[in-house]
Amino acid sequence: MKVNQKPRTMMFPAPAIIASAYDEKGNVDCCTLAFATMCSHHPPAVMIAINTTLKRKTLKSILYSKEFSVAFPSVEHMAETDYIGIASGYDTNKLEDVGFTFKDAEHVNAPIINEYKISLECRVMHIAEVGSHTQITGEIVNIQAEESVLDDKGKISYEKLNPLCYDDVSHSYFEIGDFVARAFKPGLKFRK
Amino acid sequence: MKVNQKPRTMMFPAPAIIASAYDEKGNVDCCTLAFATMCSHHPPAVMIAINTTLKRKTLKSILYSKEFSVAFPSVEHMAETDYIGIASGYDTNKLEDVGFTFKDAEHVNAPIINEYKISLECRVMHIAEVGSHTQITGEIVNIQAEESVLDDKGKISYEKLNPLCYDDVSHSYFEIGDFVARAFKPGLKFRK
Repeated sequence: MKVNQKPRTMMFPAPAIIASAYDEKGNVDCCTLAFATMCSHHPPAVMIAINTTLKRKTLKSILYSKEFSVAFPSVEHMAETDYIGIASGYDTNKLEDVGFTFKDAEHVNAPIINEYKISLECRVMHIAEVGSHTQITGEIVNIQAEESVLDDKGKISYEKLNPLCYDDVSHSYFEIGDFVARAFKPGLKFRK
Repeated sequence: MKVNQKPRTMMFPAPAIIASAYDEKGNVDCCTLAFATMCSHHPPAVMIAINTTLKRKTLKSILYSKEFSVAFPSVEHMAETDYIGIASGYDTNKLEDVGFTFKDAEHVNAPIINEYKISLECRVMHIAEVGSHTQITGEIVNIQAEESVLDDKGKISYEKLNPLCYDDVSHSYFEIGDFVARAFKPGLKFRK
């Protein structure tokens, strides 16, 4: 039997990604976000949504610089990723606190956090304020990938990356699980 | 060592959700999407992105009716979900083909697919064409949840739902994995 529940945000699964940018003084800002998705194939793009009302420093920096990076944390960096979501860039240097380092992205003016294994270099292509959050769509202009998470064909391996998953209902982190099937084949049995 | 990769869309993890709407004749449309995220707390909202250039029928129906539902498939419905992503509503009745049924949502004019255990009832609050896709943000005005996936406090259990995860790089489905930690605690050890 189905029951009604009070409206609240949810997505299964959701990621725990890191958005990074330089502020107007050239200092690095970063924050952890569960509101993120792919959103365009041509050009390749991602959309991240950051709370407007909380006056997040990273949001201000991205709106200033119009360029940012997105990193996909592995489970091994769960605690650091959690801290980057708790602390504020107005109060402390989050990367220093967790012992992480960064370098300049190659194609945009944004920081790449060295410890995260996959980073997207993004250029803002669309901004919209919707509800409590600002939606920022970024064209992916370069991808930096650690060789250790690539498969033998040079593609990013989901299992080797072991990305951190976030459940916003229980406020918990999960690992990815077992392979189920290749897409676009299991459904063919229903074709008339 | 890090290497550059050719830009392409990616998100780790990504969901495989079902968007449903009624077309202008009242017929049910649905499609499978990996481009979906939470995007606002107040009001609660989700954003889905549907390919504009492919002229998807469900996109047309949502733009017509301005209301839709989002379902979160469990791994047990992987094959049906895969089919709903392969077939076109212009060619066939996808739900009949897979043996699924639907009913009217309670708060919006959109179909709820009975077999999926969690559905969000959404009302369009923002539309933007960005890149190859149309971004549709929907306010979540009601949630229908199957009692079998609720925990003893009445909250949706990530493990009981066992949502289908999608990897767009390998075009594969995965299960969710083990619990790692509660959020907003592991990072506190870095606080100065």
